[in-house]
Parts: sequence; C-alpha cells; structure tokens
Amino acid sequence: MSQNATIRRSVVLKHRPDGAPRHEDFEIREDAVPLPVAGEVVTRTIWLSIDPYMRGRLREQQTYAQPVNPGDVMTGETVGEVIASAHADFVPGDVAVGARGWQTHCVTPGERLVKVSRHGAPLSAYLGVLGMPGATAYRGVTEICRPQKGETVVISAASGAVGSVAGQLAKRAGARVVGVAGGAEKCLWVQDSLNFDDCVDHRALDLGAELAAACPNGIDAYFENVGGAVQAAVFDLLNPFGRVAMCGMVSQYNEAEFPLGPNLGFVVGKRVTIQGFIVSDKPEKLAEWRQLAAPWVADGSLVYREDVHEGLERAPDALAGILGGRNFGKMLVRVGADPV
Amino acid sequence: MSQNATIRRSVVLKHRPDGAPRHEDFEIREDAVPLPVAGEVVTRTIWLSIDPYMRGRLREQQTYAQPVNPGDVMTGETVGEVIASAHADFVPGDVAVGARGWQTHCVTPGERLVKVSRHGAPLSAYLGVLGMPGATAYRGVTEICRPQKGETVVISAASGAVGSVAGQLAKRAGARVVGVAGGAEKCLWVQDSLNFDDCVDHRALDLGAELAAACPNGIDAYFENVGGAVQAAVFDLLNPFGRVAMCGMVSQYNEAEFPLGPNLGFVVGKRVTIQGFIVSDKPEKLAEWRQLAAPWVADGSLVYREDVHEGLERAPDALAGILGGRNFGKMLVRVGADPV
Repeated sequence: MSQNATIRRSVVLKHRPDGAPRHEDFEIREDAVPLPVAGEVVTRTIWLSIDPYMRGRLREQQTYAQPVNPGDVMTGETVGEVIASAHADFVPGDVAVGARGWQTHCVTPGERLVKVSRHGAPLSAYLGVLGMPGATAYRGVTEICRPQKGETVVISAASGAVGSVAGQLAKRAGARVVGVAGGAEKCLWVQDSLNFDDCVDHRALDLGAELAAACPNGIDAYFENVGGAVQAAVFDLLNPFGRVAMCGMVSQYNEAEFPLGPNLGFVVGKRVTIQGFIVSDKPEKLAEWRQLAAPWVADGSLVYREDVHEGLERAPDALAGILGGRNFGKMLVRVGADPV
Repeated sequence: MSQNATIRRSVVLKHRPDGAPRHEDFEIREDAVPLPVAGEVVTRTIWLSIDPYMRGRLREQQTYAQPVNPGDVMTGETVGEVIASAHADFVPGDVAVGARGWQTHCVTPGERLVKVSRHGAPLSAYLGVLGMPGATAYRGVTEICRPQKGETVVISAASGAVGSVAGQLAKRAGARVVGVAGGAEKCLWVQDSLNFDDCVDHRALDLGAELAAACPNGIDAYFENVGGAVQAAVFDLLNPFGRVAMCGMVSQYNEAEFPLGPNLGFVVGKRVTIQGFIVSDKPEKLAEWRQLAAPWVADGSLVYREDVHEGLERAPDALAGILGGRNFGKMLVRVGADPV
C-alpha cells in the first residue's frame, strides 16, 4: 500500500426511480478509502452481485429490510480481496464474500464476512450458484416445494440465478420439471443445458394452453419468481395439495401500484400451501448449501450461467436489465481484477 | 315397525341455482324407506346440518367432492336414530352421526356411521361444536394458525359454527382474539359470550380502519371463512411470519365468477403462509376433537349457539340463509323428534 490515499468510488442513490431504474437515478461519489477501525476489514471489490430484490430497497416503504435513501451508497453483495484488516481472522490477500455496497472498496465488520478459497470455484460463483441465489433455490425447493419422484414442478424465471438452481434440484429429486422463461433462446438453454423436461415462453400468445400442454398431469409445486400472468396460469393448473414457494414477483417490482391477484378460492378446495420466504432468515442454510453444492459445481453436474457487465458504472444498467428480464443467467458486475 | 311401508321424504335438486339457492331449486320426493341390505343401517333423521360448503356441491364443476346433480338427493350430515339394521354393530334405538342426505330417513353403510351416546351432549352438538365444524376449527387453529401467547388472531364469521370454536381455541392458547361478524348483535355476542377480545362488524364503513384499531399489534394469524373485503383488510395487517388458515370464502359462494384477489407480493416480504385445508382429509381428527372437547361442552367452558329451522322443507331456506350470513350460530334443521 502506498502512502497516498486509495480512492474509493461508490454508486449513490440520487433519487428514487419512477418505474424502471435508470442510470440518471444514481451518481458516482469518490472519496478516500478509510482505514479500518477495530474489527473492520477493507476489501477491494472484485465482483458485485445484481439481484431483483434490490428494486425493493429503492422504495420508500420499509419491507423486511431498511430502504436505501437518496444519498446512500446502494447495497449489494460482493466478493472482494482483503487489502487492510483490523480483524484477527483476516489478512491482506484473503478473499471474502459478504461485504455490501456498489463500491470499489468496502469497509465491513469482519464477522459479516465469509472467507472463501482462491483456488476452488470461480470467485463469481459465490454470488450465484454457491451464494445467496443458490441457497434461495435450495430453501424454496427443499422446505416448501418438496418435490416427490414423478411430480410436476414449475419454475419461473427458469434461466435466472435462482430458477436455474431450483429446477436442477427438483430434477435431482426425480420430478418432471417445467421452466418458464422469456424468449426462445432462454427456453432452449433451459431444456438443453439445464436438462429441464420442458420450458414454456411466457411471451406465448396462449400461455395457459402451452403450460397445460407441458404439464399434462397438472402442477404439484411451483417456485414463484415472477408473479403476474405466469402466476395466474400456474395457479389454474395446481393439483390438490400443491405447494407454492413464493420467492419473488419480479414482474411488478417497477410498478407504483400492484395489480390485483388471483382469487384464492382454489386454495381451500385444492388444499394448496402458498408460502413466502426470505433466504437471510436462515443464514445457516447458506453454509449448508455451499458445502452440498460445491462438489456439483466442481464436477460440472450443477450448471450455471453468468451475465457479466464490466465496470462499476454499469451497475444501474445491470439492475434495470435484470428487472426487465434482459439478463441471461446470474447478473454480475465485474468491478476489479481477480487476485494475482 | 308396522307392516305398512314407512314413507321417506327427500329434498332433491331440481336445477342448479343461479346465485343464491332458492326454495324452487329443490323439490320434495316421497318413496318407501327401503330395507337395509347386508351391512347397511336405516336411520330416522333427527337433525340435519346446514353448512356453507353445500353451495359448492350445487356447482357443475367437481372440486374436492362430487357435485350433486339435478335429480339427486341433496347431501348433508345428519344425526339419526337407528330404526333398522343389517350391520352387527348397530341395533334399533342407537343414535348415530354420519348418515348423509336431506332426508327423513337415510340408508347408510354401517362403517360410515359413528354411534354417539343418547345421554351425553345434546344430539345436535355432534353436527356443530362436537362435529365437523368443531373439528374444522380445531385443525385450522392447531395445524395452521398455531397461535402463541400474546399473538393476535383474527377469526372471520366469528359467530358461526366454525369461527366461534376457532376463536375460543385461540383464546385458550393465550392469544388476543379479534372476531369479524355481520352486525352489532353478533359482534356483541362474540365479545360477551365467546369472550373474544374484540369484534369488528364487516359492514363498517371503514373496515380496514376498524380492524387496525382492534389489532394494534398487527395480525399474526387469520382463520379465513369469508374472503372478499374482509380478507383484503386482514392481509393488509398481517405481521411477518403470519399464518392464514384457508377454511372457506363464503362471501363468493353464490357468485358465478369469482372476483380477483389481493396481490400476493406481501407473501414474500412478510414470509406469510396461506394454507388451505379440508377437514375430511384427516378423518381421525374428528374423534380426537370430540374426545378433547366433550368435557368443555359438558362444563360449559366451550360456548356454542344454534340457529334451528323446523322441518325438512326448510332446508333450502336454511342454506340460503347461511350463505347470506343470516344465521346466528350453527345452522340446523330439526327433521324429527329426539329419541324417547
């Protein structure tokens, strides 16, 4: 480290977006990276994760987490290299996941960081298939969808970071797995590379009919990432004792007013369970998932795909992209080089 | 028994009702009570239960049960006295619950009947507080609502056969219990006689505001019997990790088309569970409930109220009444005299 101050660049919320987030809703702030105080660690960001939940943080209302306010650095999980440490467990050169911020450098209490190996999976995987999205899929599938051999499971946003893992887990459980994705290219990849049994394009003229054709025995479990017309079409096909893991409803995240939903009368007659969950409520599940899935990533049996934007300045565009369904796989921003 | 044939009167569906069921949608059929064949039992109906689910049987679509078709005897649970038996476990003079039909006499396989004591609870109780409605409340509260001490539980149709028991069970669990009922008289009874902490009239001008005032700490669990505006108002007030037991949505049972429901985005952020159930899926729970609740009925600590229509011919009116919220307590039709 030189005696000159290291400059930190941060993406700061300028004003709350109206509809889809735009580049102009954010601005870049520059300052000197501060020294860590006792217990803190300074990381140089390598990868920044872009996830749909971030749109919720831009709303004024508090949900399960504090909103990001104008003037605040935008929040987001990163993988970074430790460049300075005031915490006994971390030394420069360590690689850690868990620092939060759309920033070139993050200052974080050490106990919030998890060290990861520089020599195992690609570092970006700790933000996707081996990270929060993977653990989200794991919880939704194993705790709520609970697919049985021969059952039909539908996964929306099937080519995304969460959906792609959820569907592969349901396949491992022996279910017939049908994806829903946007456009022919994604659907092809979901079938050919992820090995789902079928994939329906949600832009189809008659989504309900196409979904019914792909699910001749009805739907026993649904992993919900999108809401809207896809949700309505799936609900119409649910079987008795169907399970719905409510992970997200990205189709409406840019909306000021949420549209009405399906009439819930069917929930009684079909004894359906609709259950929402937030991955961070059970943080211990992340380590459990990493341990379980790391060998599958290593041997290539758990397939994932990344959609990389280069440079911190691209983060707002990446967020707008994922909210518009324009990502193809796990959305990432490359902020800095891999450790040498 | 005389040598002359005993006449059986049955209420038969003439044509499917359009909207609220009317007297003219049914007709009375008379025939001779047949002799029981091997394993069957003939009962003389004393009490007929009238329940909201019956409206679903009048629809053409099959749900979880077969529809009643024009020309069929309308279905419904009864308490009756055995007058002829071809089943070793039953002798004339026994009283049994479980025979089905809007009829003065039912012919039923003995294994579908449960003998009850003539000298315990009032016989009508086996169709209400100690019967299917009571067991429904028991399952919904203990398996889905799972109220904890100090939590707030809301019960819709709070003065009805199911709601009145559900709320008293939640009170026994130490929860703050708020009912929703139609009109001042019912609300008063729910508070004064059932000992709920509060009761809101669903006809209030601003239901949301009244419910919010009655639930200053939000709502942790909801026992859903009605749907519609009450459901929307409750969902707005649900706390994180809220549980919704979906028992019925009687407000829409007469509708040809079901209205849209609430947007389900809140289910994710609040990690809500919305779960439908049908009491008959776990028939063993009925006996468990009867055993548990019989002492509470005997000592008066489990309060119930009955709304009795006199005569089989009144059954269609009774059904229309319960669907319109015009019952006050468990709806029953007195078909025949108590055993002497």
